[in-house]
Amino acid sequence: MSILVVGSVALDTVETPFGRADEALGGSATFFSAAASLFCPVQLVGVVGSDYPVRALDFLAERGVDLAGLERAEGESFRWAGKYAFDLNSRETLETRLGVFAEFQPKIPAEFRDAEWVFLGNIDPELQLNVLDQVAAPKFVACDTMNLWIDIKRDRLLDLLKRVDLLLVNDAEARQLSGDFNLSRAARWILERGPRYLIIKKGEHGAILFTPHSTFFAPGFPLEEVFDPTGAGDAFAGGFMGHLAQCGRVDDHDLRRAVIYGSVLGSYAVERFSVERFKDLAMDEIEDRVRSFREMTVFELPVDAGV
Amino acid sequence: MSILVVGSVALDTVETPFGRADEALGGSATFFSAAASLFCPVQLVGVVGSDYPVRALDFLAERGVDLAGLERAEGESFRWAGKYAFDLNSRETLETRLGVFAEFQPKIPAEFRDAEWVFLGNIDPELQLNVLDQVAAPKFVACDTMNLWIDIKRDRLLDLLKRVDLLLVNDAEARQLSGDFNLSRAARWILERGPRYLIIKKGEHGAILFTPHSTFFAPGFPLEEVFDPTGAGDAFAGGFMGHLAQCGRVDDHDLRRAVIYGSVLGSYAVERFSVERFKDLAMDEIEDRVRSFREMTVFELPVDAGV
Repeated sequence: MSILVVGSVALDTVETPFGRADEALGGSATFFSAAASLFCPVQLVGVVGSDYPVRALDFLAERGVDLAGLERAEGESFRWAGKYAFDLNSRETLETRLGVFAEFQPKIPAEFRDAEWVFLGNIDPELQLNVLDQVAAPKFVACDTMNLWIDIKRDRLLDLLKRVDLLLVNDAEARQLSGDFNLSRAARWILERGPRYLIIKKGEHGAILFTPHSTFFAPGFPLEEVFDPTGAGDAFAGGFMGHLAQCGRVDDHDLRRAVIYGSVLGSYAVERFSVERFKDLAMDEIEDRVRSFREMTVFELPVDAGV
Repeated sequence: MSILVVGSVALDTVETPFGRADEALGGSATFFSAAASLFCPVQLVGVVGSDYPVRALDFLAERGVDLAGLERAEGESFRWAGKYAFDLNSRETLETRLGVFAEFQPKIPAEFRDAEWVFLGNIDPELQLNVLDQVAAPKFVACDTMNLWIDIKRDRLLDLLKRVDLLLVNDAEARQLSGDFNLSRAARWILERGPRYLIIKKGEHGAILFTPHSTFFAPGFPLEEVFDPTGAGDAFAGGFMGHLAQCGRVDDHDLRRAVIYGSVLGSYAVERFSVERFKDLAMDEIEDRVRSFREMTVFELPVDAGV
């Protein structure tokens, strides 16, 4: 029941109103693995340059992230630098240096090819398709994408959608992809293009799961202090896939609960810089917050209340 | 168990991407009454000019809205004209003509003064306080406000907060009032100023109820067609207060369910222009949508699912 993740492994320099982190661990595969490995083993495929502090990934290896698919290429690692506004909702990218990531060609190690649970982090849809060609018979494939690919690789992205079970995007991406501002109609448009399930993430406003038969809303967890929003989406994906893989099945109940686990891991991600919060996050804390989500959303129907 | 509402009764001219309504019924007391009267009797206090088509309010009277407190003053009625952008989330005010509303001094008829349930629509906090001086011993008082009063009548608004049970505002207003961008901290700030309960409305992103002991999230109802958002907030207040008054008590369960009824009435309000949707809205349709809210938010805890 391990999960294969393919994505970026980067060094992030982040400035927020609360402080600054220099060349901290970042990238979609890193955040995903840090969250998912709290639930089950993870197989990571990515690339770093010869300058990457690979020892900093030891904490992942120690809790079951198999780094056999992490290629070390000659050259510079992927670096991203960004600055968040005071409201932490908008950010400015100060620098993106792709380095060895620009030539990344995912090679799935033989021992990863029978993966049942696959998460395709936000990389070129060509490469995401290429990964799917290398895995034998996955039980459940989820993918992420971004505005750049919707813009310049739309056709390949649409090809990809036919081959995945779930697409995970934010509200702006769902609108851009479908060309429809209304999220319900945007969701229907996307589901008609292949994926059986869709999750639309709305940041502080929560996340929506669309299935062929139902819609499920999870609120954003109300934090009084948001420290660094970087990686929240990938941590969400990690919690979501981690819980599903742990269940070993995908029914409506599992998917809903997985959205809550995703929301919980996303909410923890933002409490510190980089993946710091995941280093000592205990399962008890995760379960506590899952129960908080229930308390925050449960209500009695009139018939239960005798009204 | 009737509800006293004090607020505006206006004529709205609204342009949306889907059409246009000219001089349609509008105003906070009108939308509130149209929604609340589906649950219980309503006593309306407001003012209209000599040009108001009062016969158009007959449908309200027929279902239990007592218009004895609707003053007819010499002069022009309150008129508002606005235009919504294609996304229906932003609107431009084209014209505001206060007319007789500028000199409105609410006079609560003797037979309304023992009201148990009171809703103070968005008017000058001085007048809202004045209304409270005229009612004997209300069981539950809720009030609305807006950016203008937060700006120019802040002290009186803070006086008012000490005398109400619940404040109902949107997210921008909560941020402006508290001076804090973070909604959880903003909510705490407001609750420390008097009201026992706070509802923050977030438009399509739903609503949050803050009580001294808990937080409750209701999502926005996912509509594929939003026709005219005008009045959704007052319809929310009407559904909320209507259900509470019908319950006849205010415990945590009632408040949560009332937020759902508010969300349901708000979602129906936007399906047509003005108060049109409420003219033939049946209780069955309301209960159906309440059940949909439950289906959209319910999930099993891991222990229920045997995970």
